[in-house]
Amino acid sequence: MDYEGFFADKLSDLRNEGCYRVFADLERHVGQFPAAKNFRDGESHDITIWCSNDYLGMGMHPVVLDAMSGAIRNNGAGAGGTRNISGTHHYHVLLEQELCSWHNKDAALLFTSGYVANMTTLMTLGARIPDLVIFSDSENHNSMIEGIRHSRAHREVFRHNDLDHLEELLAKYPKEHPKLIAFESVYSMDGDIAPIAEICDLAEKYNAMTYLDEVHAVGMYGEGGSGVAERDGVRERLTLIQATLGKAVGVVGGYIVGSHNLVDFIRSFGAGFIFTTSLPPAVAAGALESIRYLREHNELRQRHAERADTLKRRLREVGIPPMPSVSHIVPVLVGDEVQCKQASDLLLRKHNIYVQPIVYPTVGRGLARLRLTATPLHTDEHMDHLISSLVDVWKEIGIGAQDAAAA
Amino acid sequence: MDYEGFFADKLSDLRNEGCYRVFADLERHVGQFPAAKNFRDGESHDITIWCSNDYLGMGMHPVVLDAMSGAIRNNGAGAGGTRNISGTHHYHVLLEQELCSWHNKDAALLFTSGYVANMTTLMTLGARIPDLVIFSDSENHNSMIEGIRHSRAHREVFRHNDLDHLEELLAKYPKEHPKLIAFESVYSMDGDIAPIAEICDLAEKYNAMTYLDEVHAVGMYGEGGSGVAERDGVRERLTLIQATLGKAVGVVGGYIVGSHNLVDFIRSFGAGFIFTTSLPPAVAAGALESIRYLREHNELRQRHAERADTLKRRLREVGIPPMPSVSHIVPVLVGDEVQCKQASDLLLRKHNIYVQPIVYPTVGRGLARLRLTATPLHTDEHMDHLISSLVDVWKEIGIGAQDAAAA
Repeated sequence: MDYEGFFADKLSDLRNEGCYRVFADLERHVGQFPAAKNFRDGESHDITIWCSNDYLGMGMHPVVLDAMSGAIRNNGAGAGGTRNISGTHHYHVLLEQELCSWHNKDAALLFTSGYVANMTTLMTLGARIPDLVIFSDSENHNSMIEGIRHSRAHREVFRHNDLDHLEELLAKYPKEHPKLIAFESVYSMDGDIAPIAEICDLAEKYNAMTYLDEVHAVGMYGEGGSGVAERDGVRERLTLIQATLGKAVGVVGGYIVGSHNLVDFIRSFGAGFIFTTSLPPAVAAGALESIRYLREHNELRQRHAERADTLKRRLREVGIPPMPSVSHIVPVLVGDEVQCKQASDLLLRKHNIYVQPIVYPTVGRGLARLRLTATPLHTDEHMDHLISSLVDVWKEIGIGAQDAAAA
Repeated sequence: MDYEGFFADKLSDLRNEGCYRVFADLERHVGQFPAAKNFRDGESHDITIWCSNDYLGMGMHPVVLDAMSGAIRNNGAGAGGTRNISGTHHYHVLLEQELCSWHNKDAALLFTSGYVANMTTLMTLGARIPDLVIFSDSENHNSMIEGIRHSRAHREVFRHNDLDHLEELLAKYPKEHPKLIAFESVYSMDGDIAPIAEICDLAEKYNAMTYLDEVHAVGMYGEGGSGVAERDGVRERLTLIQATLGKAVGVVGGYIVGSHNLVDFIRSFGAGFIFTTSLPPAVAAGALESIRYLREHNELRQRHAERADTLKRRLREVGIPPMPSVSHIVPVLVGDEVQCKQASDLLLRKHNIYVQPIVYPTVGRGLARLRLTATPLHTDEHMDHLISSLVDVWKEIGIGAQDAAAA
């Protein structure tokens, strides 16, 4: 076999489909975000970032930076081992305690990423609980899908946020049969939110465990910021909550919270937890201070919600309506992958606005979009510039023109 | 089903087998390593760490700490997104360039960990190359095994480092049939090293790709420190090299290096790469400076090799022979899990020496061991203390006494 030829062919196919990804080489600067540098064609350009998942700008916040710098100066760079073999640092212990308190759960466990948290936890539960059936929302994130697939547990996929379909599938199994319902609170590419309380009702009726991914919600919702489950007053009803330290918290890493026995079970049997170097102490220290700050500053969430609402309104006003998101995520559908990439390129090169095109496999084919995120640091002036640039680009490329002509 | 009862039972089984893991809560301090604090029973104890994978102490080195602090101060905490969606920072680009240069390969790709690098790369190759057969060493790390399993590619396991068995398995398939040989250079729990050149000979004879995990070797072997493949003069013969930034490099993260098309293929199709927040810029900045230092300071590797050799000699002198390691890893077999945990507890509580017991599933059942690592920062005095403490503990617990009586 000609291995090199095979790889080259597959990459060529991606290019032809408009799905070949080119990463923007960025340099964010403390105190200047959402402004940043973009290195391309051998030069540095001043741009504005409009697609960051550092939703609240905590990745630039002095309390986080001071905590991390201090930990590096005092405790060094890496952890030096897996959690079991010399890699449990006191900051990991303190952060896990903080996460329990934040989510009002008994136990917490850190992972190197949210991806690894989902994959490892679902894989371990699915592989080790005999006959477990996992009921999985059809729009779940890749990390959940891979964890479920890899577990080889039996899987039932229910239509996105469809309670009737979920109940129909649950009812197929005797009440005593082990079950787990896996879903998200905020779905990150559409911005819709799950009916958590109603899913908990079904879980209780059919004796299923619940697994809620709050990756795009922690820091963002609820008076104390621990997520949609807090906002909706249903935290105690969930068996397990999973989230990340890499988005609103502003650093990196993932975690789960739940009962002592359940979390200890994943700690003891989860391969993706056991066999990997733990997070640097400074990462844990930064996340710890970020969460402490987020718990006390609901006004940051209010400001953020206002920014997202304003952006949605202004888009509608100029005839570029966002998809029907009920969260802070503001996706604008383009559809065609090639056109979406053109729009992104034009925004960057002509207007110095950076919004990455979102294409397959992150979303389905033919559902390419620009996914905008307005942080509390995006001003009205930033928004004026974004809106006028989008109008210009939409006109230049002719996005939606065919639909308009057909209407 | 009683879920809580199920988890509690499984944890109880682990305790009865001596395989329940208790993490040591540590605090390392810059300038004092291998000395550290251990928090237990509500108090802080001064201990010496003898099982860190921060093999060269780079996790405490000023060039690394300065680079990380500077990047945090200037560029913030987290990356703010996946590599594709606003999370490629200029330090990632610079670090990938450095990794290419270090390993003398065309392209490099960063992952959040070595675990994710192995799992994602092997899974992607195995799932996407039609009919690929993966030939896997029987002692490969869990992350490789999981990646191969998850790919659902056909797998042939060859006996550890056994060239005849590998050839026997390769010869079963026509030369044109796609093949990949996956193996490690330094096996981390026994300390033996693969015959890389001979495996490359077989790969060429049977037209197989080669995948070498140098996780425990980067920074440690070869004049420029890029690993055993460099030491043995065979880097150019390997299709793909995988390694970590979390052990000798002293920070966290993983990577692969290989041809442009191969690395771009993993970049474009590897789910565990695509769908996860990228490493913090400061982590990339720290790893970059660590590697630049390691390339220029072979004397650190010489000092390290001397320390490991001295430790092995001193263990033999007191009748506690290490396993036959040809690397820097110094494992001392105990066998029984409960006895191994007792030895570790006694070392910690009576002698203030921390060596984590290594038990199933990290090693096979009945093969529990203390795995010692001597860094360049471990002095002769540290070693005197370790040796006398081990002699005391061996005597108190009676390790090896039955063997001696039987002989």
